[in-house]
Amino acid sequence: MNGAESLLGTLVKAGVDVCFANPGTSEIHLVDALDRCPRMRSVPVLFEGVATGAADGYARMTGNPACTLFHLGPGLSNSLANLHNACRAQVPMVNIVGDHATFHRPLDPPLASDIEAIARPFSRWQASTRRAEDLGRDGADAVAAARTLPGRIATLIVPADAAWGDGGKIAEVHAPASPPRPDALRIEEVASLLRNGQRTALVLGAHTTEGAGLQAAARIAAKTGARLLAPFTFARMERGAGRPVVERIAYVTEMAVAQLAEFRQMILVGAPAPVSFFGSPFRSSILTSADCKIVTLANADEDCAGALDQLAAALGADKTEPQLQHRETPRAPPTSSLLDSIPGTVLQLVPENAIIVDESITSGRGLMGATQGAAPHDWLVNTGGSIGIGVPLAVGAAIAAPGRPVLCFEGDGSFMYTLQALWTAARLSLPITTVIFANRVYAILKLELMAAASNPGPRAMNALDLAPPAIDFVALSKSLGVPAVRATTPEEFATALRRGIEGKAPNVIEVPV
Amino acid sequence: MNGAESLLGTLVKAGVDVCFANPGTSEIHLVDALDRCPRMRSVPVLFEGVATGAADGYARMTGNPACTLFHLGPGLSNSLANLHNACRAQVPMVNIVGDHATFHRPLDPPLASDIEAIARPFSRWQASTRRAEDLGRDGADAVAAARTLPGRIATLIVPADAAWGDGGKIAEVHAPASPPRPDALRIEEVASLLRNGQRTALVLGAHTTEGAGLQAAARIAAKTGARLLAPFTFARMERGAGRPVVERIAYVTEMAVAQLAEFRQMILVGAPAPVSFFGSPFRSSILTSADCKIVTLANADEDCAGALDQLAAALGADKTEPQLQHRETPRAPPTSSLLDSIPGTVLQLVPENAIIVDESITSGRGLMGATQGAAPHDWLVNTGGSIGIGVPLAVGAAIAAPGRPVLCFEGDGSFMYTLQALWTAARLSLPITTVIFANRVYAILKLELMAAASNPGPRAMNALDLAPPAIDFVALSKSLGVPAVRATTPEEFATALRRGIEGKAPNVIEVPV
Repeated sequence: MNGAESLLGTLVKAGVDVCFANPGTSEIHLVDALDRCPRMRSVPVLFEGVATGAADGYARMTGNPACTLFHLGPGLSNSLANLHNACRAQVPMVNIVGDHATFHRPLDPPLASDIEAIARPFSRWQASTRRAEDLGRDGADAVAAARTLPGRIATLIVPADAAWGDGGKIAEVHAPASPPRPDALRIEEVASLLRNGQRTALVLGAHTTEGAGLQAAARIAAKTGARLLAPFTFARMERGAGRPVVERIAYVTEMAVAQLAEFRQMILVGAPAPVSFFGSPFRSSILTSADCKIVTLANADEDCAGALDQLAAALGADKTEPQLQHRETPRAPPTSSLLDSIPGTVLQLVPENAIIVDESITSGRGLMGATQGAAPHDWLVNTGGSIGIGVPLAVGAAIAAPGRPVLCFEGDGSFMYTLQALWTAARLSLPITTVIFANRVYAILKLELMAAASNPGPRAMNALDLAPPAIDFVALSKSLGVPAVRATTPEEFATALRRGIEGKAPNVIEVPV
Repeated sequence: MNGAESLLGTLVKAGVDVCFANPGTSEIHLVDALDRCPRMRSVPVLFEGVATGAADGYARMTGNPACTLFHLGPGLSNSLANLHNACRAQVPMVNIVGDHATFHRPLDPPLASDIEAIARPFSRWQASTRRAEDLGRDGADAVAAARTLPGRIATLIVPADAAWGDGGKIAEVHAPASPPRPDALRIEEVASLLRNGQRTALVLGAHTTEGAGLQAAARIAAKTGARLLAPFTFARMERGAGRPVVERIAYVTEMAVAQLAEFRQMILVGAPAPVSFFGSPFRSSILTSADCKIVTLANADEDCAGALDQLAAALGADKTEPQLQHRETPRAPPTSSLLDSIPGTVLQLVPENAIIVDESITSGRGLMGATQGAAPHDWLVNTGGSIGIGVPLAVGAAIAAPGRPVLCFEGDGSFMYTLQALWTAARLSLPITTVIFANRVYAILKLELMAAASNPGPRAMNALDLAPPAIDFVALSKSLGVPAVRATTPEEFATALRRGIEGKAPNVIEVPV
């Protein structure tokens, strides 16, 4: 057994059996090993940023790491922007990066680079394996590191001769390090705050907007009157009819400040204290009011869901019935504007158990609020602010959750960073309906420019335009194998969305804004 | 004057007046400053890898740095793969990377990352400016660093408050550090080797396949009988009728070994000793024969063109007439195969003074050899092996050399990494004819797979396919604003290439392989 076979064998033994791959020559023995490791599913991508975005989406939906396969330093480099987002999503992921053979790299061939240094900013764990016999063990360590709560990026660098060398051994899988639990004193301190009658927010991070953590938080809220908030950037939120209501902290600083003004106490659950997305010469970066007391129930590296359970118990809220969202249906449309009609249409048409990926930036700002009472679904957003994650995330989520429909709302500017993801969606016939809001401008930047400069000049404004030429997203999508339509009226959009979902195959709807 | 204005003002004063930009909120004051710095030309790109590829192409054609503008760590991350190539091309480039305001970054907002660490692997010079009053000076230092021979990557990190802050000062421009010159002893040692009658190769790196360096090398070759070689990866070669002949070292290891077998002496001019692109379990990485003596005339950081001049003088070759390539015309086509016909068609149709960018990988292997006797032109290749540089390089070259026609030969796999470059070509109406060889497979990897494994399995082979779905490159190009045709016969290709060149506007020719 060569090193490559032992690595793939160890990964699947550890439950890591999806690989988003863009290999090259130095990884060719890992590719070759696929036929002797049939349980490893290889998903081809045309650009590495698609792989990390998809592995992120996969991890958000399963809690389990996928692996990626990249070609040397440049391949890893192309993956970094969405790796940044994955770091911020706190998901598990195992990156396999090929390197030159150990005897070849010191010769400094054209593709040599300092892979270790490239990996470091976005890896919580990393290793470079020198020998075939160590690859299995390092692979097992990578998986355990990735699974350490709340989810970590692990990067394993594999020289070609470690992959092709003999002596590979499939390693024993071991459990990730147990997360520390907040001590009883901290639980009691927070419980006493929740009993003092002050207006209190619980800010849910580190995967507590889903699963057992969310349920515990909802019981606490029902018992104490605390409000449940999520940071503007969260990995996944279970929401819709029959689910607890978690309010997202607004992106626009003034709105967030207004939203948080009432709170005198804020309890952080694996979430950072709320700050604005960007600093400003005109406003403070801090979103909470000056007299809001901020305490931490649990850090992201601690067992946050467990801490919420402990807290619920301390409050006597174990059996409290959480307040759940009712199903809502759209009001009669009072508008003939296409853009204004979309939230209501989505509210109506979101299928049960859908996965919604939202990277619609300015055009889609009303979507999340309007769909609170839709059929139950998961909502995934960009966690790190590096745009170009939407369709990759949708690809990974669709692979993670077969049979569940995926809706992806994209800004045109964001979409263009990783449009190659459509090809993978087509290759795998994934049931993803992508809505592209084509306003043909980096609209959020024009807003920022107008806020920064009282009277921005034409050259600055022009630098933020996405036309001319106006990209034809229908033709673009079709060229990559994904059927597409353009919706120019509310009725056309509703028809396209319904058909797109029913088709159970990738499709794109261009919405000219 | 704010910091942003002082930075742009300093850059244009230093002769850096083209900016390939993909800014975000933290760079909005630099965007705003464009209207008060009309000499700075901002070129929009939809993905950062396009920017670094274009800045590379610009630098290869002018010898002068362009600047780039990126949004925080993720924006810089997206630029790195082509920055790797630019490092290997040894071109000057100034990257401007926005950062959060200095008071905001410690709050660890979602877009925060260790920008300095991300920049380091591919920057020879870098700085993070804290105050508006230092931005001009740091900008001038960045330009001087970039211009230090043979050309370096300089990265300047600009916090938003340094950009918006008052007190900016346009800085004095200063000259780059003078390159060391090889001492007389070294020149004499190399000259005596060239007189000893042994079979000798001169390997030309560090921009000596163009300009004065190439002319001096050609005189030396004519005087001594030495052969002129270029590494497989070179930044730019002046070639065609009326130019000296420089032979490129082959990519395929066996071919390169055969090509270099005759040489008993090799003189390196700013070039590394030839090694194979990848290490192999079956072959040595060293391409020269064991008894070939390898000596260095000048390192890349030294004045290589000057060293060649000194060497020519030492050999009495100052006035020697170099041997120059004759104009060749294609023989009557003996083939009806489309792919086989293309080199001859290109030989015939390359316009005088064209710029040819070649990232055609397997499909275009015959192109360079066949066009040795074409009208005089420049040939640019991928220098670092990170694919996805072709069209970006063409965009930068077209901006650098207005009026010169650009031909870009692309593999379909490579093209898909940075296809966003077509949009910039359309936006600026750049005269670039892009030929996409659509073989719908990572063909070079299938060759490597078959070399590595005697009988590769279907899952490995499938992982290297680019279809289904078969990308429609004609529709894709049109969707991005670039007219396109598909050529399926030699005649159709010849017609399309002629019309494409004559049109003096961006166009794409898909060649199904």
